[in-house]
Amino acid sequence: MIRPKNDTFLRALLREPTPYTPIWIMRQAGRYLPEYNQTRARAGDFMSLCRSPELATEVTLQPLARFPLDAAILFSDILTIPDAMGLGLHFAEGEGPRFERPLRDEWEINDLAAPDPWDHLRYVMDAVSQIRRSLDNSVPLIGFSGSPFTLACYMIEGRGGTDFERVKHMLYARPDLLHRILGINAKAVVDYLNAQVQSGAQALMIFDTWGGTLSESAYVEFSLRYLHQIVAGVTRERDGQKVPVILFTKGGGLWLERIAATGCDAVGLDWTIDIGAARARVGTHVALQGNLDPNILLTTPDVVRAEARKVLSSYGTGSGHVFNLGHGVSRHTPPENVAALVEAVHEGSRVYH
Amino acid sequence: MIRPKNDTFLRALLREPTPYTPIWIMRQAGRYLPEYNQTRARAGDFMSLCRSPELATEVTLQPLARFPLDAAILFSDILTIPDAMGLGLHFAEGEGPRFERPLRDEWEINDLAAPDPWDHLRYVMDAVSQIRRSLDNSVPLIGFSGSPFTLACYMIEGRGGTDFERVKHMLYARPDLLHRILGINAKAVVDYLNAQVQSGAQALMIFDTWGGTLSESAYVEFSLRYLHQIVAGVTRERDGQKVPVILFTKGGGLWLERIAATGCDAVGLDWTIDIGAARARVGTHVALQGNLDPNILLTTPDVVRAEARKVLSSYGTGSGHVFNLGHGVSRHTPPENVAALVEAVHEGSRVYH
Repeated sequence: MIRPKNDTFLRALLREPTPYTPIWIMRQAGRYLPEYNQTRARAGDFMSLCRSPELATEVTLQPLARFPLDAAILFSDILTIPDAMGLGLHFAEGEGPRFERPLRDEWEINDLAAPDPWDHLRYVMDAVSQIRRSLDNSVPLIGFSGSPFTLACYMIEGRGGTDFERVKHMLYARPDLLHRILGINAKAVVDYLNAQVQSGAQALMIFDTWGGTLSESAYVEFSLRYLHQIVAGVTRERDGQKVPVILFTKGGGLWLERIAATGCDAVGLDWTIDIGAARARVGTHVALQGNLDPNILLTTPDVVRAEARKVLSSYGTGSGHVFNLGHGVSRHTPPENVAALVEAVHEGSRVYH
Repeated sequence: MIRPKNDTFLRALLREPTPYTPIWIMRQAGRYLPEYNQTRARAGDFMSLCRSPELATEVTLQPLARFPLDAAILFSDILTIPDAMGLGLHFAEGEGPRFERPLRDEWEINDLAAPDPWDHLRYVMDAVSQIRRSLDNSVPLIGFSGSPFTLACYMIEGRGGTDFERVKHMLYARPDLLHRILGINAKAVVDYLNAQVQSGAQALMIFDTWGGTLSESAYVEFSLRYLHQIVAGVTRERDGQKVPVILFTKGGGLWLERIAATGCDAVGLDWTIDIGAARARVGTHVALQGNLDPNILLTTPDVVRAEARKVLSSYGTGSGHVFNLGHGVSRHTPPENVAALVEAVHEGSRVYH
């Protein structure tokens, strides 16, 4: 495996020296870009876009053509695994993802099995291979998955963003059933991520979008435990190159030490925690990725630059910081503000390296 | 002012010895109680219920008739202040609160003024007086308000629970405008809470429902700063009795030391933080209120009892703990689970006192 020409992202994740702080943006290929909306319109719907390696490659590369970002991320959805399990992922217009057949009965949970990523998720592996070819070793490609707990939330509720009454009911009243789902999800995620690495992914990120809705003890038992299994189970080196793993629990700022202790290479931060305070707690063990409030990108280039400088200054001197937002970029973001951010991070970070 | 017969709640807030851990439940007068739904149906709509001192008194007392709770809380809404400012609070069926006339233009912000609580909010003061008479010094009555920042969120967005793009835009692009709103809100909240104390409220709670959506630096500047003004401005003693103040920032677990440093008597905790860890951080300065995940009340009495014991055990020996949920009780809660919780806390806590 050849090291990409711009390897600042990989080096920062491994806390090796870099000339500046690398940056990529969660959901960087998304609806704030007119060219993305055009491709999506051509695809018909969101899942057709994900399922076409050609179109997934096209949209993955779009933000890199506009901005000198330091990493590409596979264009896909966090819910491809439960879709491959047969739950029927679909996207209603103007709403989040839904499952047609959420897990409602115990027999459905007993019948659940981890999908073979080379079979039902082959389209993802084909996209990874094709994106790598198109990137031509310019910047590294990030593979990703939802966390076992986050997948379970959608699988049980049938949707996200609710108060999770069904998931919490199962967690407290039938923990055995939830553990069964989570164990299968963890195996599925490991298989899926390893297939992505085999197809060319050079770093891995796990999105634990809903782990932060749990109490600490429930988080440890029902989310972190399975994140630990993933860190232990995924390919950490390929062809002599390390494959760094980033864990991101949104709302997990209270539990950074526990997340860092999984053995991951980097911890993603949402914007609620001061990144300097986070570094003081876990910075000798892991790199940190984050953490500008994405709403700042709705303002003006001047405000964006000023706020980006505050994050850089809070992190301080030395390597181990990958700049990012604390959550996905809003669809209402003017692309010129993203340009201002990338430039401000690249230029403004040199004094810290 | 006569001390109530059951003063465990007030004593725990002041970290004085009590024979057991007192408990009350956020939104204890609410839709999980059939008798509440009957009264609300009689009132017609939610705001008519709030505006009638007779009906507000009736629903305030309903949970106390069912469960041996250690405090009553004024039945009202956190948004009465902006309603009194003329923004037109209303509740669409099946949705959260909305304002008919959210703040959209700069002149509207310049025209904003703190309402006289004895004029436009007289109905709240009448309810407080009437509830106190009906309680007949059995348990203390809690008065409350939304925090300046949380009120501003609703005033600017027109509703809650969104991604707060408008509020964040103002915060980052026009901080002067947001500070103007917050300054007026802080004055309004102090006047409102002091009128509640004068009418008979014996403890005060500030609900900062949305402060946890901010970055730490934004939280300090736009929410905590005004919480500080409130703690400094409200009546802390009346007729020789202390009036304890509880600050609750949902999602504020990272900032407990800062919240405790305002000089408040107690800090409310949501369920994401371990209460023992919170006590280790700030327990020598403040009492703690919380923090069971309200979803636990959707399960069974056995699960409720077991989880309540875990919270008591995590807090450990000694005073300074008021048991509560980490958020309001769900409308889907079986009342028998609330009965099990109250009993488990009263009985199970005696060994810690």
